[in-house]
Amino acid sequence: MALVGRSWLLLVGFILFYVIYLLFGALIFSTIERPMEDKLRHDMEVLKKEFLNQSCVSAASLENFLLKVLAANKYGVFLIRNASATSNWDLASSMFFANTLVTTVGYGQSTPLSDTGKAFSIFYALLGVPFTMLVLTACVQRLLYPLVLAPVSLLQRSGLEPRPATAVHFVLLLFLVVLCFFVVPAAIFTKLEESWSFLDGVYFCFISLCTIGLGDFVPGMQPEQKYRTLYLGAVMVYLFLGLMMMYLLLRTFHKMSDVHGLTTMLQLPRCEDSDPDEDREPIVDHGESPQRQTEKGASNHLEPGSQVSYNTINRG
Amino acid sequence: MALVGRSWLLLVGFILFYVIYLLFGALIFSTIERPMEDKLRHDMEVLKKEFLNQSCVSAASLENFLLKVLAANKYGVFLIRNASATSNWDLASSMFFANTLVTTVGYGQSTPLSDTGKAFSIFYALLGVPFTMLVLTACVQRLLYPLVLAPVSLLQRSGLEPRPATAVHFVLLLFLVVLCFFVVPAAIFTKLEESWSFLDGVYFCFISLCTIGLGDFVPGMQPEQKYRTLYLGAVMVYLFLGLMMMYLLLRTFHKMSDVHGLTTMLQLPRCEDSDPDEDREPIVDHGESPQRQTEKGASNHLEPGSQVSYNTINRG
Repeated sequence: MALVGRSWLLLVGFILFYVIYLLFGALIFSTIERPMEDKLRHDMEVLKKEFLNQSCVSAASLENFLLKVLAANKYGVFLIRNASATSNWDLASSMFFANTLVTTVGYGQSTPLSDTGKAFSIFYALLGVPFTMLVLTACVQRLLYPLVLAPVSLLQRSGLEPRPATAVHFVLLLFLVVLCFFVVPAAIFTKLEESWSFLDGVYFCFISLCTIGLGDFVPGMQPEQKYRTLYLGAVMVYLFLGLMMMYLLLRTFHKMSDVHGLTTMLQLPRCEDSDPDEDREPIVDHGESPQRQTEKGASNHLEPGSQVSYNTINRG
Repeated sequence: MALVGRSWLLLVGFILFYVIYLLFGALIFSTIERPMEDKLRHDMEVLKKEFLNQSCVSAASLENFLLKVLAANKYGVFLIRNASATSNWDLASSMFFANTLVTTVGYGQSTPLSDTGKAFSIFYALLGVPFTMLVLTACVQRLLYPLVLAPVSLLQRSGLEPRPATAVHFVLLLFLVVLCFFVVPAAIFTKLEESWSFLDGVYFCFISLCTIGLGDFVPGMQPEQKYRTLYLGAVMVYLFLGLMMMYLLLRTFHKMSDVHGLTTMLQLPRCEDSDPDEDREPIVDHGESPQRQTEKGASNHLEPGSQVSYNTINRG
């Protein structure tokens, strides 16, 4: 029990550190980008006033004006009255941006304007992306027993053969994930976002949880959004849980593929002559005795990262 | 030799099918989105004319105008004279969009306007993302011998111990990847894209190859870009090769971690009491004889996807 307790404590520690890392990123991004944004916003207001003061608007002056408006828009600075109230680089928005960096979703609804911001983004993602994957994997490890192994075992005890048991379990899990992470959130987004249809909601959930993150739909970006900080926080939690469940689904699919012999079928034939054991053998020659080799064989399943399969690269 | 030949033939088949899948996606996206884009472009031209014909531009009418301009901009339709020449949904651009979907980079420089386009994006990515990962993994499998196993073996034969050999090899590979997939492409982008600094180039390469894809920098989007189709094609090849090398680097890092005992250190303690063998055991109870169990143990390394490690989820 002490070990289980320690293991869960470590997980809580990981999640706490993850939140602290996001907060740290938010603080730095906010500090770097807020003054740049304020300056750009001020410049745009001046530009707008000058444009409105013209006696006659020519095609050329409009084009010149639009070029600048669109360039500012790229950085999330809009020239609309209501939109100017909320910043893209307050603490909540900066944390949301940091979150889209480390999860590799990257909507790009706001992007760093300064060179320092760009350089910090690289540094931040370099550490943050692998760490996020580590935290997600740690969570999935804890969920495998209650959500995969126990239900499959239950299905088997209720009389199902191993293969149908895994298939039935996978379909049930898929249904649950689609319901809880696509259909229900899409319905909620449709309620909360004025201009989103239900399809828009599903499209947003799918594009986000595949980490494509096109950014054409980003929640909480309406001017005068109510409880914006809370809303952005909830979306961040949704993204984290959603990615976790997508990964769990992928793991379950691979486990099912193993049982059904699909993995071997999907795996590519090896280049037998050139790299007969590229993944079965370690990277280096140890010159070991046969006995050592046997010991290694026995403990082989404890060495992760030493096998080839297409599942070692996730859906990105 | 026949096996090697067949294996490479299969890889070529995979890559061919990948290109055909992209072309198929491009054709469908172009067919669905082109008429919508043309209509939006036409509407915007009318709007611009009406706006210019006003005798006096009020703040309210400007705001109303800008709202529509920014909404059109979200779908990649700009109201700038030069920009209107190139479409976001011609065959090359559509293929580029399809490519950013299946690689999960998702810049979002152009996004589907129609509901059909959004629904097709979901369907297309659902099949395309796993297939792309499969093709990338197949390529990495072929590269492991010449780029990882052979050089490490060479370093060992030249007198280095296993641990320093893997470390030296990893540093060399990292240097090579940074040079060939970050520094050189960034320099080329700086030359080809008028407004990009060298930092912008590095930032673009990093944000792309981590599949974050913020979309603040997207190549080939300048109005009147020379050889645009060729350029977009080259960027697609760069993205594919870059993602492949990032994955190879990740695999090499894990192999090195195994040798250095880092993997065990990084792995989380298991919940011994609740799921003692969650990943060592198959998903189902076979009720096998001890002899069968031993045989399975011996061939355990041939069953991919049956191990937990944080590397089974990639950098996304």
